Amino acid sequence: MKEAVILAQGAYPVHPYPLHLLKTAKTLICTDGAVNRLQGREPDWVVGDFDSLSETSREKYISRMIRDTSEETNDLTKAVQFCSRKGFRSVVILGATGLREDHTLGNISLLGSFALMMDSVRMVTDHGIFHVFAQGIQKADGFMEVSVPCCGGNPVSFFAFNPAMKLRAEGVRYPVENVVFDSWWKATLNQCTANNLLLSFLNGPLLVYLPFSPTWKEARDIPEE
Amino acid sequence: MKEAVILAQGAYPVHPYPLHLLKTAKTLICTDGAVNRLQGREPDWVVGDFDSLSETSREKYISRMIRDTSEETNDLTKAVQFCSRKGFRSVVILGATGLREDHTLGNISLLGSFALMMDSVRMVTDHGIFHVFAQGIQKADGFMEVSVPCCGGNPVSFFAFNPAMKLRAEGVRYPVENVVFDSWWKATLNQCTANNLLLSFLNGPLLVYLPFSPTWKEARDIPEE
Repeated sequence: MKEAVILAQGAYPVHPYPLHLLKTAKTLICTDGAVNRLQGREPDWVVGDFDSLSETSREKYISRMIRDTSEETNDLTKAVQFCSRKGFRSVVILGATGLREDHTLGNISLLGSFALMMDSVRMVTDHGIFHVFAQGIQKADGFMEVSVPCCGGNPVSFFAFNPAMKLRAEGVRYPVENVVFDSWWKATLNQCTANNLLLSFLNGPLLVYLPFSPTWKEARDIPEE
Repeated sequence: MKEAVILAQGAYPVHPYPLHLLKTAKTLICTDGAVNRLQGREPDWVVGDFDSLSETSREKYISRMIRDTSEETNDLTKAVQFCSRKGFRSVVILGATGLREDHTLGNISLLGSFALMMDSVRMVTDHGIFHVFAQGIQKADGFMEVSVPCCGGNPVSFFAFNPAMKLRAEGVRYPVENVVFDSWWKATLNQCTANNLLLSFLNGPLLVYLPFSPTWKEARDIPEE
């Protein structure tokens, strides 16, 4: 599947796993000012309204700049829309959290709409990975089923964008069948009991957060997905 | 008003304003493992289930430990409940964001319930301040009115815990009257036009986020509220 990595304008990654993804991305798109801080490689495209672009970046990347001045969407959304137009079906988003918490909350909540535009959406932070699902294998009762690789024993949290979401999960310590998603903490701090989560949901998208294991000190220690 | 400062177990503050609040707090409550990293002063109480408390902290603060082993609430909630029992009507929460994003989202969403227990609740991060309001001056049409000091020209974001929240605001650049709070980003990235926000809401609590000005390099530069 054609995958793009997007570097957004939150805190620049420090954990080895997002840094590894940044370094090895076949296609790297930076949102606007994020390119100013990019180290160790070149962006393939720079997308945004360019109100945060440094003069140096502007001169250096003039041939790779995709200008979108819409005031209805933020630069991260513009980057994902650009990926969609270019035929990418999978995106990995880096640098979208940290710094101002209103941007962090906004960017996380946008994952719901990104999931409707892509087959695979992951947001990788310095602390873990958000996976988001709008689709899955449709079951007879209307639930969508998805499978998420994980590590037995590690924590996992689930979030809904729609308070009416229903969730069933196999491979977790605490049952989630009766969770009412009327507060963001309602299905957090569960634990994986196997190396795979089998999740079925209604009224998605479903957001799944898997924090890195504290023992993963190097990118090479992180189990391949 | 009797105010307590709570230090939670997210990233330890680095911005001078939360560090100033930590240092000058008349009453400081640390949640569990947060006390392990406390620098420059002593806690008045340590509240939690003590599963993250170091042996050194345990020995040092044995006389100030309030043990609460309830599995229904997290340590931050236990600390706020303790403050409520002790007669505090105002809390300032520090160190509740950063690190794992599921804890950050959980802690921010808990502000809604803390607002029901207190007259004043603020969460101060390294990047700004969350104010949360459950009550205000009740208007004839049922809206609750609150006033929030701010700085003209600075950004402001509004969040709802209930998607049915209605908001009216004076002192902001972009109208919010018709915002439907069905996604977290819906009323973010507004701008203060005066040094006071006059806000009226229905179906709260209402969460208001004011990022620090980038020019506030020192605690003394931050306007007194």
